[in-house]
Amino acid sequence: MADAPLYGKVEEVLASEIARGDYQAGDRLPSEDELLARFGVSRITVRRAVQNLTQRGIVEIRRGLGTFVLAPRFSHELTRLTGFVEDMNTQGRKASARVISQSEVAASVGVARHLGISRGTRVIRIERVRLADSIPMSFDETYLPLEIGREIVRNDLRVMPIFTLLEEKYGVPLIEAEYSLEAATASAHVAEALSVPEGSPIFRIERTSFTTDGKPIDYEMLSYRGDLIRFVTRLARHSKTEASQPKVPPSLRRR
Amino acid sequence: MADAPLYGKVEEVLASEIARGDYQAGDRLPSEDELLARFGVSRITVRRAVQNLTQRGIVEIRRGLGTFVLAPRFSHELTRLTGFVEDMNTQGRKASARVISQSEVAASVGVARHLGISRGTRVIRIERVRLADSIPMSFDETYLPLEIGREIVRNDLRVMPIFTLLEEKYGVPLIEAEYSLEAATASAHVAEALSVPEGSPIFRIERTSFTTDGKPIDYEMLSYRGDLIRFVTRLARHSKTEASQPKVPPSLRRR
Repeated sequence: MADAPLYGKVEEVLASEIARGDYQAGDRLPSEDELLARFGVSRITVRRAVQNLTQRGIVEIRRGLGTFVLAPRFSHELTRLTGFVEDMNTQGRKASARVISQSEVAASVGVARHLGISRGTRVIRIERVRLADSIPMSFDETYLPLEIGREIVRNDLRVMPIFTLLEEKYGVPLIEAEYSLEAATASAHVAEALSVPEGSPIFRIERTSFTTDGKPIDYEMLSYRGDLIRFVTRLARHSKTEASQPKVPPSLRRR
Repeated sequence: MADAPLYGKVEEVLASEIARGDYQAGDRLPSEDELLARFGVSRITVRRAVQNLTQRGIVEIRRGLGTFVLAPRFSHELTRLTGFVEDMNTQGRKASARVISQSEVAASVGVARHLGISRGTRVIRIERVRLADSIPMSFDETYLPLEIGREIVRNDLRVMPIFTLLEEKYGVPLIEAEYSLEAATASAHVAEALSVPEGSPIFRIERTSFTTDGKPIDYEMLSYRGDLIRFVTRLARHSKTEASQPKVPPSLRRR
């Protein structure tokens, strides 16, 4: 490391102290003044080091409060259509759900477009908070066509995943889904559901799942805690055969 | 719409007024008081309508300032390894870049791990702001192995994409890339580069591209303006053949 720039050395020392648990998730890092005294470097060097830790998602700066250590993010693979419970089980974590609401509502323009129905058609809307080892990870808003939705809400959605109910109890196979991924910040409603401050980073997934014959069967807006999750995938430069390349439909290219 | 809940009607009226341009990106929506007078509904109904517009990414609430209309997001397909200029060209937009810095630095632990080299090995680091039709869309930090990196920085990176240089000028084919996707908020450094307020949503992509024989050739941290972009893809429930399913390596499953 003889050649490493000073800020890089400060960054690596702090990163490894965090990695081995000297500072834990939620802890405040020493102040800028304390860090520059400890390392005997300039303020600009300390700032650059902390900035790099911020970009790596290891710490976050809360204005006026200081720099805080973030919990490591969990990696979900984004290579196959999977539900929350499956994702959690893959990681050896216990999934549960808190049901916020279940209701029959008229489909808005957006919901209608995704479910391939007319605006105003009645649908089932379900709001849930999804937890992993009792930590709220995601706030999910699910819209289902009325007929199957009425069956689904007869079950205990605190313990039964909707994907499992569709496939195993009601014989509705899931074939594929369209995903739209966005970075957003938490509105008051989502912040409250996830127990995070308003304005916290949210990884938002809009997902429409299709059953046989390309029929949309489940439209969801998933708001994941951005500080707890990352999605990983691997993409090829050239598709092996153009035919096997999934096409994103024009509807998803628009807003 | 006779059956639609009141908030849903207010939501749809406002959404369609925004869609047809009565309110444009950056405009402030009428205040809560003005909206409840106009629609003759309760405050809670107005709040719920605005909340739904927020969740749909159509407006954002700026605390103490009001509710503002957001620009529509651009959709990028996340189905193949593509560069910024290719993505923009697909959408008929003009891509350009501002080069912030080009330097030789010692690889940090993270950079070294992604490029498959030892910590402290010298690498080329390039910081660029990528623009679409003159709007800053993304702040990119790129790390390249020293030898090819020294060649790359001899070119005018304001106009030449690194992918094009690698593939067409230096004969380094790109085969595939590992992606890690996160939602974050803008640090002061990224906020300044993108001309957005600190704390704005950032869609962060960490990407390692590989050339032949699985050799990593380009490691990037891309910070996209969250309010301007979405990524779309389509995933199947079951892979047709397990062999064709891209595997995410264990290195990406960790933090």
